[in-house]
Amino acid sequence: MVVYVSFFHEASEDIIQEMASSLMTTKLFRKDTRHLVSILDLPGSVLFIPQDSLVGEPVPKRRMQYKAGCELWWGSQLFSNLVCACRERMSGSVRSTQAGVRVEQGIYGQKQEIVLNSMEPMTVLLEF
Amino acid sequence: MVVYVSFFHEASEDIIQEMASSLMTTKLFRKDTRHLVSILDLPGSVLFIPQDSLVGEPVPKRRMQYKAGCELWWGSQLFSNLVCACRERMSGSVRSTQAGVRVEQGIYGQKQEIVLNSMEPMTVLLEF
Repeated sequence: MVVYVSFFHEASEDIIQEMASSLMTTKLFRKDTRHLVSILDLPGSVLFIPQDSLVGEPVPKRRMQYKAGCELWWGSQLFSNLVCACRERMSGSVRSTQAGVRVEQGIYGQKQEIVLNSMEPMTVLLEF
Repeated sequence: MVVYVSFFHEASEDIIQEMASSLMTTKLFRKDTRHLVSILDLPGSVLFIPQDSLVGEPVPKRRMQYKAGCELWWGSQLFSNLVCACRERMSGSVRSTQAGVRVEQGIYGQKQEIVLNSMEPMTVLLEF
């Protein structure tokens, strides 16, 4: 599961546990025929990618404005906390630990290369 | 540029030209240092991917509901029209034609494999 994350100005620590819980336990994946399971139940690995551009909104003259995001130092801290919270939940899952799945992360504020290979891309948008 | 598309129930043909215009002319890309350009000015190719899961919303019991999307036959038609509208705009751009860039598409309603390689992933959300 690849998670693109951005935080708005008003984002606070309070939301981190709810985000982690939702990401790790929402039944997003189809196992077998119609049986839906969470990433923890699958089990599968998770890659977090900081993606501040998600807060962008169109403004006149065909431009985008990216002012709604929180400051870099704060976004960086919230991002780390979210990754840690998800990693803890994965460590607490016997099934995930036995399968050797992991929570990994991109580096906040840096340009990085990504290579994705998906058999059946599925994208959902979660707002908190 | 990879474009994930879904249409809500109330989507109509009226919105297609506005979507195409916005996608092809919004200055999303950085060329040189601080100079922002559209996909037509870059120029770059476009891949459209039908992604009905984008309309999903969380409901109780850690489930997702995907009821907000339009019917398959209608979404399929809107998707085709959007791809055509963008292809026309690209054909009308001398720079794009000379560069040999193209507009390609996934098949609506089918599971398909995707391989993405991005040097600097950037994600924006556009609603119409």
